[in-house]
Amino acid sequence: MTAMLRIDLASSVPVYEQIADGLRAEFVAATFQPGERLPTVRALAIDLGIHHNTVAQAYRQLAAEGWIELRRHHGAMVKPRSLPATPATSPDLFTRSLRELLAKALAGGVSRGLLARELSNAARRLDEGGL
Amino acid sequence: MTAMLRIDLASSVPVYEQIADGLRAEFVAATFQPGERLPTVRALAIDLGIHHNTVAQAYRQLAAEGWIELRRHHGAMVKPRSLPATPATSPDLFTRSLRELLAKALAGGVSRGLLARELSNAARRLDEGGL
Repeated sequence: MTAMLRIDLASSVPVYEQIADGLRAEFVAATFQPGERLPTVRALAIDLGIHHNTVAQAYRQLAAEGWIELRRHHGAMVKPRSLPATPATSPDLFTRSLRELLAKALAGGVSRGLLARELSNAARRLDEGGL
Repeated sequence: MTAMLRIDLASSVPVYEQIADGLRAEFVAATFQPGERLPTVRALAIDLGIHHNTVAQAYRQLAAEGWIELRRHHGAMVKPRSLPATPATSPDLFTRSLRELLAKALAGGVSRGLLARELSNAARRLDEGGL
């Protein structure tokens, strides 16, 4: 599972949130089956080379959002669920975040053509029910 | 200018970075002319209702990235420049960030159709040289 999660310690986004963001994308993409177990907090912490409290915080956030169920001594289980979940987002917030993400990529030297292609591909995947 | 900047105090993204992200998007979109003055740190801090140190930190980051020039007693001036600037970004990082942003929006109840339309619109604007 660590292949899905890449942690950037230099980012201003807290590490627990990077983990939660990465896993949430997998839940939305239905990479996991309902009832499937996630790695234990300790196992994932060791794999990622970070403190287990950080992983525990990510799991608590995902549990609060309704994606997983935490059971003492039984780890984290992926819950059967249907979208949408908390937290509520506005289309407006999405548009603004997308614009800022594109600005960052352009400023960082990624070409317009490549970004436009990525966006079109992502739009097609969404239309096909994927992510 | 505060109309462009919306600060979310509940976000885990530091406020100074929210300001920098918002302004960077405007620089990339060429909303400002080279040589144009930004509001002073104090004026912007009052408009946004935040501490002036937070605005100063955002301006310092944008100065470090080469977007603005800070001159004592003369405030912040938009620099003439061409893309790309620091910090370097990888297409891969963009793709991952986009996927996580889409997952958050879907989980927050924004429809696939609306997101796909937003992406297509953004792709078209990029192709036309805009943002």
